[in-house]
Amino acid sequence: MIRTKRRNLAARRTAGRRIRSKTSGAVPAFLFDLDGTLVDSVYQHVLAWREALEDSGIEVSVWRIHRRIGMSGGLFVNALSRETDRTLSKEQADKIKRVHAEAYARMIGQVRPLPGARELLDHLSRAGIPWAIATSGRMESAGLALKILGVDPRRATVITRDMVQHAKPNPDLFLAAAKRLGVNIHTSIVVGDSVWDLLAARLANSLGVGLLSGGYGEDELEKAGAYRVYQDPADMLQHLDEIGVRAIFAE
Amino acid sequence: MIRTKRRNLAARRTAGRRIRSKTSGAVPAFLFDLDGTLVDSVYQHVLAWREALEDSGIEVSVWRIHRRIGMSGGLFVNALSRETDRTLSKEQADKIKRVHAEAYARMIGQVRPLPGARELLDHLSRAGIPWAIATSGRMESAGLALKILGVDPRRATVITRDMVQHAKPNPDLFLAAAKRLGVNIHTSIVVGDSVWDLLAARLANSLGVGLLSGGYGEDELEKAGAYRVYQDPADMLQHLDEIGVRAIFAE
Repeated sequence: MIRTKRRNLAARRTAGRRIRSKTSGAVPAFLFDLDGTLVDSVYQHVLAWREALEDSGIEVSVWRIHRRIGMSGGLFVNALSRETDRTLSKEQADKIKRVHAEAYARMIGQVRPLPGARELLDHLSRAGIPWAIATSGRMESAGLALKILGVDPRRATVITRDMVQHAKPNPDLFLAAAKRLGVNIHTSIVVGDSVWDLLAARLANSLGVGLLSGGYGEDELEKAGAYRVYQDPADMLQHLDEIGVRAIFAE
Repeated sequence: MIRTKRRNLAARRTAGRRIRSKTSGAVPAFLFDLDGTLVDSVYQHVLAWREALEDSGIEVSVWRIHRRIGMSGGLFVNALSRETDRTLSKEQADKIKRVHAEAYARMIGQVRPLPGARELLDHLSRAGIPWAIATSGRMESAGLALKILGVDPRRATVITRDMVQHAKPNPDLFLAAAKRLGVNIHTSIVVGDSVWDLLAARLANSLGVGLLSGGYGEDELEKAGAYRVYQDPADMLQHLDEIGVRAIFAE
């Protein structure tokens, strides 16, 4: 009886290992948001959206735009136009997105990598930990930020709005990133600065980690489901063991 | 014995009334912050500070600047230079403040009154409730925002950085505003969007009310001592009775 139990346990362990190996579940993977998480671009995006919305006659307080950054551009424009009792045609919504992209491109010279962002990605690469970037932005805007970050989208795994049906808070971007890396989304760690990243992480059933570097408050991120909240990539790099990275390696 | 007690109570009530009348304590007064509370200018200030700091070789993440907006410009520059291990001379600090003022003036065309700001001030004026504006900014920058808000500093009570020794989080600005209005600071209501306003309110021993319109999270403002938190001036105007305005009037 005891022997059978042991054998069963051993069999299950082996099976577990095989499954984990197949899905790469034994190695944690990191799926990063881009704006406000790796590059310091949120406030420029906010003012670029303000300009684009006002250009189409939509006046919205800037903090309300800030709190919507990171969600799908389509959802974003819909939500703000609904709040202001405006109904927008597809052409009007497209125009707003175009004016935003132009205004943001004008401000790109102000955008810097967040402290520790390059170091964190380098550390993960050296440790053999898979990572990807998944952003609600289109390659047109994301490409500029990636260049500042020193990430080549032809070499790294980068999923942009153009590649999936629905952007955040739908989990599509993170699911696509995990699939491309060949890792299990359920053992992956989603890192983002907005509640939309953390909602997408919950919908994808993966661990969410929040960063304050996009300008949300700590409680807002925790309430949205962040397992841990760090100040920025530099702070996260110093506390990687808290997210179980070493523990998983030690198994 | 009972009679004496009653008489004493009556005497104290009369005295109380007299004291309240002398200090205008019976009428609540509102002491407003300006940027992020009445005008939608926080995000422009944030990027203007980013530009000024970088111009002097100080690179700070934008969210850290955002979380310091509303405090004294001197404290602000000191804090950020300490965080980045820089020691600044008075000339360097002055230069940063000057470049910020220039950059902000360039962006002033984007600044709008916050929803309900004018209506709230008009409502208070019509109801005979004293109000003042107390800002950590100097008249140079505050004047531009006041113009947008439609407030003439020669007619309304406006206290700027230039008029007191210490700006927020010291209570000097709000104390000076109450004194100028001839009201009791202890029965005044301080309204602000930042934790620095709320800290100053606590130090002044007056009631603090927070607004989300400067981009802080609700919990951040509550933790800093906000008795109530509203979205913006429009939301506050709709809930004025919650702050005891009607109740005090009904006394």
